[in-house]
Amino acid sequence: MTWLDLPESTGFGIANLPYGVFSAGSSAPRTGVAIGDHVLDLAGLTGDPVHATGSLNAFMARGPAAWSALRSMIVAWLTDPAHQERVTPHLLPRNSVTMRMPFEVADYVDFYSSRNHAENLGRLFRPGSPPLTPNWTHLPIGYHGRSGTVRVSGTPVVRPRGQVLDGGKPVFSPSRRLDIEAEVGFVAGVPSPLGSAVAVRDFPSYVFGVCLVNDWSARDLQAWEYVPLGPFLGKSFLTSVSPWVVPLPALAAARVAAPARDEPLLPYLADDDPWGLDVTLEVRLNGTVVSRPPFRGMYWTAAQQLAHLTVNGAALRTGDLFASGTVSGSARDEWGSLIELTQNGTRPLTLPDGSVRSFLEDGDEVEISATAPAADGSRISFGSVTGRIQPAG
Amino acid sequence: MTWLDLPESTGFGIANLPYGVFSAGSSAPRTGVAIGDHVLDLAGLTGDPVHATGSLNAFMARGPAAWSALRSMIVAWLTDPAHQERVTPHLLPRNSVTMRMPFEVADYVDFYSSRNHAENLGRLFRPGSPPLTPNWTHLPIGYHGRSGTVRVSGTPVVRPRGQVLDGGKPVFSPSRRLDIEAEVGFVAGVPSPLGSAVAVRDFPSYVFGVCLVNDWSARDLQAWEYVPLGPFLGKSFLTSVSPWVVPLPALAAARVAAPARDEPLLPYLADDDPWGLDVTLEVRLNGTVVSRPPFRGMYWTAAQQLAHLTVNGAALRTGDLFASGTVSGSARDEWGSLIELTQNGTRPLTLPDGSVRSFLEDGDEVEISATAPAADGSRISFGSVTGRIQPAG
Repeated sequence: MTWLDLPESTGFGIANLPYGVFSAGSSAPRTGVAIGDHVLDLAGLTGDPVHATGSLNAFMARGPAAWSALRSMIVAWLTDPAHQERVTPHLLPRNSVTMRMPFEVADYVDFYSSRNHAENLGRLFRPGSPPLTPNWTHLPIGYHGRSGTVRVSGTPVVRPRGQVLDGGKPVFSPSRRLDIEAEVGFVAGVPSPLGSAVAVRDFPSYVFGVCLVNDWSARDLQAWEYVPLGPFLGKSFLTSVSPWVVPLPALAAARVAAPARDEPLLPYLADDDPWGLDVTLEVRLNGTVVSRPPFRGMYWTAAQQLAHLTVNGAALRTGDLFASGTVSGSARDEWGSLIELTQNGTRPLTLPDGSVRSFLEDGDEVEISATAPAADGSRISFGSVTGRIQPAG
Repeated sequence: MTWLDLPESTGFGIANLPYGVFSAGSSAPRTGVAIGDHVLDLAGLTGDPVHATGSLNAFMARGPAAWSALRSMIVAWLTDPAHQERVTPHLLPRNSVTMRMPFEVADYVDFYSSRNHAENLGRLFRPGSPPLTPNWTHLPIGYHGRSGTVRVSGTPVVRPRGQVLDGGKPVFSPSRRLDIEAEVGFVAGVPSPLGSAVAVRDFPSYVFGVCLVNDWSARDLQAWEYVPLGPFLGKSFLTSVSPWVVPLPALAAARVAAPARDEPLLPYLADDDPWGLDVTLEVRLNGTVVSRPPFRGMYWTAAQQLAHLTVNGAALRTGDLFASGTVSGSARDEWGSLIELTQNGTRPLTLPDGSVRSFLEDGDEVEISATAPAADGSRISFGSVTGRIQPAG
């Protein structure tokens, strides 16, 4: 299918072709596409300055027709041997390049769309109340995060300081309950004007692609601050994203129906054209798999999230990132955060070296990866988003 | 004091000199300074391309030494008659120019720092509970808003649609409880690195200036959505800012001590160098003054807000906007939102034409203005932020 010698069962075959921004040696950052163990230098191959901007934003802003045209050309370049001689000089070993932040984040919104996660956290944060708030089954709950602290995979995670309760009184301390949230993120490419709404069915006209997100969370800061206006410093110290953005068309074979609904949906959230996605995440803590969260069971889809986000007339901008919220399945080994996996620290995880973890310790490394089925029967990879905890500065 | 013929008691004298971005005729937007009834075209006068970018960001990023140097030069140009001939061609009548969005908003954070407002809203939103949540006196509560929908004064306010409760069930409807929030906003000029904190005393090294903010709010959307993750669509349809950014040094004579504290402050919030500001706001509804909120009584100052915002290591960017939250004094005619002024609609306002208002109606116009004392005994003006309500689209 391709003249390239691809590694067996690579997640970066012709069915995937995710976009990222890389630098090689001292050259300026540019756009590349992952193929097997290589990255295809689009700036060098095409000569199009849009791929030499150091960010996907300008290309994303061109819209779906341009995305589709380039994807078709890349497939042709990598499959037709007539192009081999011209393309080969622009293939670099992936392990020789440095991956950069793939896009400039305009606004960052984080949703809360896994029912299992919302119920698990409701039980822990609001014991004695129903685990789901009354609005949860009627709308995709979300909030704005800090776009200025979204960083690419590999960025060190400096343990945040802040106010935490100690014996009922707030003290200033490094967080003692540093956690992860394994999420899937959606990147808007096409802006929408202020005062208009984006319909569920128009999702693929606006959204360029999909990445992985680790929404690092300081549970002790969050628990003390979040009533009544929501999470703030417990989240805003860092949010990490994977370097590769998987284009929406690569996920055509992963589309599934969303779960049955508890309540009738208001018409603007009706998803007759469903955008559930059969993506399976894997969370590793210091190399050990601690969870495999299934994205396919999310109650609210990304298309519904986008429709909700804009139904009040809020404008969308190129580079807007909206994330799913923690992905948690129903089974214990499918939960996407440590606060769930350890039941708020009451049932610590034991790692192969015999050490136990309630929350993250300095030096710990977390890696979140994911795959999804491709049309050709293979699986496509999202790569991964990693981070290592550093002591409070 | 100046060779210019300034209108008597102008709020735009030599003590003020606020920055904005304007366009005149078909020329590209550029930076200007308000002086009397004129705007001084800095791009034309200085030839510095930084003032021809259409945004204050590049100039703000130069930092406090550059801000101070330019302010000194502008004072010299406008006071020394030797400059009159060279400067005069670059003075345009303010009523002949169009004001633009003065800066590109990086992240937008909205605080909740008026005790009167927090207590008033606590009583309305959470009847039967203590009006202040336990964290309120320990930290400046805040949340991230949508930076992509911050617009300059005069932008039409399209009534947002969304989910509102009707007989206990959510229905899709134009908001029936559209409100204002009269606030003061602070604009960061100098970035701070990820993983570090900005101390209270370093506030003037990072913050460029001050503007007025109307944080339009759909109370019915907000009430249904905001538990547990905070306000989202009830706020994200539009936030308006005044076109003029008053430089921090213009407010030196307005500095006051913050109110007495109920609780000892954690050291990172100690404000031995207090940044309370004696700014008086005025809210007009269809031309009638309905409130005069006093900013000087705010419990948390902007310097404390900035210290809190970054204490977890969150990075600051040029163009970050953080707003005070609704400014409300203790007296009824000092409250900064209609939900307070009308006690959630139970005590409607009567306007001079005999009409009554619980919340905003289509066609209503709101104007928020403000003044502060200057060192020379005059008062400086912040100009105003206005908006007229349009029917749901």
